[in-house]
Amino acid sequence: MSETDEFSIRIPETNKPRIVLIGGGFGGLEFAKLLSDENVQLVMFDRHNYHTFQPLLYQVATAGLEPDSIASPLRKLFDKKKNFYFRMALVNEIIPEQNTILTSIGKLRYDILVISVGTKTNYFGNQELIKKCFPLKQIPQALDLRSNILQNFEKAVLVNNPDDLNALMNYTVVGGGPTGVELAGALAELKKHILPRDYPELDFKQMNIYLLEGSPRILAAMSEKSSKEAKKYLEDLGVIVRVNTVVESFDGRTVFLKDKSTITSNTLVWAAGVTGNMIPGLAPESIVGRASRLKVDEYNRVAGYKNIYAIGDIAAMITPELPLGHPMVAPVAMQQGRHLAKNFNRIFNKKESPKPFKYFDKGSMATIGRNRAVVDMPKGLHFNGLLAWFVWMFVHLMYLIGFRSKMVVLLNWMYGYFTFDKNTRLIIRPFVKPNNPVIKNPEKARAVSGYDTAV
Amino acid sequence: MSETDEFSIRIPETNKPRIVLIGGGFGGLEFAKLLSDENVQLVMFDRHNYHTFQPLLYQVATAGLEPDSIASPLRKLFDKKKNFYFRMALVNEIIPEQNTILTSIGKLRYDILVISVGTKTNYFGNQELIKKCFPLKQIPQALDLRSNILQNFEKAVLVNNPDDLNALMNYTVVGGGPTGVELAGALAELKKHILPRDYPELDFKQMNIYLLEGSPRILAAMSEKSSKEAKKYLEDLGVIVRVNTVVESFDGRTVFLKDKSTITSNTLVWAAGVTGNMIPGLAPESIVGRASRLKVDEYNRVAGYKNIYAIGDIAAMITPELPLGHPMVAPVAMQQGRHLAKNFNRIFNKKESPKPFKYFDKGSMATIGRNRAVVDMPKGLHFNGLLAWFVWMFVHLMYLIGFRSKMVVLLNWMYGYFTFDKNTRLIIRPFVKPNNPVIKNPEKARAVSGYDTAV
Repeated sequence: MSETDEFSIRIPETNKPRIVLIGGGFGGLEFAKLLSDENVQLVMFDRHNYHTFQPLLYQVATAGLEPDSIASPLRKLFDKKKNFYFRMALVNEIIPEQNTILTSIGKLRYDILVISVGTKTNYFGNQELIKKCFPLKQIPQALDLRSNILQNFEKAVLVNNPDDLNALMNYTVVGGGPTGVELAGALAELKKHILPRDYPELDFKQMNIYLLEGSPRILAAMSEKSSKEAKKYLEDLGVIVRVNTVVESFDGRTVFLKDKSTITSNTLVWAAGVTGNMIPGLAPESIVGRASRLKVDEYNRVAGYKNIYAIGDIAAMITPELPLGHPMVAPVAMQQGRHLAKNFNRIFNKKESPKPFKYFDKGSMATIGRNRAVVDMPKGLHFNGLLAWFVWMFVHLMYLIGFRSKMVVLLNWMYGYFTFDKNTRLIIRPFVKPNNPVIKNPEKARAVSGYDTAV
Repeated sequence: MSETDEFSIRIPETNKPRIVLIGGGFGGLEFAKLLSDENVQLVMFDRHNYHTFQPLLYQVATAGLEPDSIASPLRKLFDKKKNFYFRMALVNEIIPEQNTILTSIGKLRYDILVISVGTKTNYFGNQELIKKCFPLKQIPQALDLRSNILQNFEKAVLVNNPDDLNALMNYTVVGGGPTGVELAGALAELKKHILPRDYPELDFKQMNIYLLEGSPRILAAMSEKSSKEAKKYLEDLGVIVRVNTVVESFDGRTVFLKDKSTITSNTLVWAAGVTGNMIPGLAPESIVGRASRLKVDEYNRVAGYKNIYAIGDIAAMITPELPLGHPMVAPVAMQQGRHLAKNFNRIFNKKESPKPFKYFDKGSMATIGRNRAVVDMPKGLHFNGLLAWFVWMFVHLMYLIGFRSKMVVLLNWMYGYFTFDKNTRLIIRPFVKPNNPVIKNPEKARAVSGYDTAV
């Protein structure tokens, strides 16, 4: 397999070692930012041409923010680097014995591989859930959920049957982690402030928002205090929170629970777990745990390989103190990305030895509607309410990438705060084909409507 | 056909006359805003749940603005009205003898029908063009064009063949009206300021932007001075402007011109003309002209019908002074919408007679990149350059709907002005399926990538 192979991706061959980075999430981004490309060549792959600020995806899904304000084009972020190449592609396979990756646009040799592919939604192999649930990990998914929510209400004004109405107006969020909690809170605010103004014909007392969590408490990774406060906030907003509740199946209209009860709801958002976005090709010995992560040492090197590293959610740095590795959260990914970049800078620029990774826990937080949030700080410190809400906003704005995005998000938040409005309520998705029996001639209907399918 | 028919759309029957409005464009919006719904019931249909500010679509297509900032949710705009109903649907047919419309969600009786459906892109029946060109009349189309532009460059860094490179890097815009001129200018700015930073591997001297116009001058509806200045501005920016140039066909890679020459270009934006978005069912005698418009009298009443009105681009108010009707531009639509609403207010509230419509021409304008625009005022007044550019921006901001949109657009423009950047460079569209021969197992590839198709 020679380099001049017709299927090779065109990247200049230099005498500098080539580091191939897969994934432009929180970990990959920090790694690429801090890596000095003086003595190495960096090639970055991502399936999107932008970085997604995932913590605010739920606000895109609930019409609070435009997608563009939480996405940063990756090429732009690194346009000052010299030995940097970006390729938008899916990486399909790693062939470690050939130091090569196979991608949707061809193959590429690497000297060092850094895997930062994060996780994907875990449906535990349930094919029905895969087809019928809404996940919330990517911008297209958030846009799809947003369009679905608004389309449900456009349909609700048309139906007569109370059961159909329930199915359209009820929302079920599965998973009581930060995504589920924040989404349920945002849906409750839509119900309270926005939807009744838009759909005065509907009775919003009939709209129920369910948050289902399999374990005994929501926000299980946070303090008991935070769990309790968050549950109270959600219930104040009208969300029906059910813990110790497991979903067995969903047929697109009825949610079947393990306790044999059911919920009528056309929309089920699945935020109940993630699994490693594993790329085939690595030895089974290097993959660990339920969540399918890559076992790494304290230098983030994947077990069994000398030149393959993993950072962020996909990496499980298992130590006696941390038998499950670090929590799968953005701060770990960012710190590992920065640390690995610095280690490479030590090796390639300063001829120093790499240092082991140590996680610095700054705490965690979640927000539940306006004026309400919970914050856990290290050493058992906890606070909540308005101050927590301001801290949540400040931290998210601070970490958001780019001045323009910060400004646009701040503007939207301020506008939303004072007007109780969320303004990006656009339905942009393929049109439901007209199948009403009144229409005798759907071809003609289509010709009249012109171009009406979306992106 | 009774009202309680199972296919009827559920709208309360009252003793007030029901006005059905089809279309939430410039004309429909002004009509709905100004119509007093005290003594009438207003039912509005649109295929989208938002109004599109079409004059800025080209900035969405060229990554300058987020789609949400030029779209206004229609329900929100009218949430203060009492006898107002919105239905998101396509209207497929009018049955004037039964005073009924057939739509994608059922049928509805009307007392008065107001048609404000505007125009659609006119391909003059050329099926090949319909399949392979990019139109630019709707937000999903603008997003599709934006993604296509960015994907072309992601592909360009992969190809070796100079001919493939030309096809990916060249852009052809057909139609020298304001849309074509403004789009070509914005593409030229992308080429000058943005793309070379994002794609340092590519040689942008090889990127050509063609603007093709069939008639002897671009901006043919404006003054000769404006045409001349606009052409000069475009050429200064590197756009190749060809007048008296007619496209015969396009195979997705080569544009075939009537003079037998060709242009290699994968992307052809068709802004060369529009035709009435005609709804079947009206008598052929009421339809006039090449552009398929509805013949209306000076009260905007459609010829041959007592209770059907048409406003905006779809209406041709033919008088001895205006043998082709008014120009098909937003100001005419807005003025007709307002005028018709006032006439109805006169009839239903004040028991007065309606007044005939008179168009007040405020002039026209077009912009070509930063600091450059042309403005024609009534009575032959003309100015251009920096002042015209500020006037263009001010007028567009003023007419944009909603405070939040104005602020977000202003912020984007200011950011873009000072940084020479356009920040909404996201590719959000269905992923091109991997068909590279290196991938032996595309099913596995898909499973690895997770959910990657867009909205």
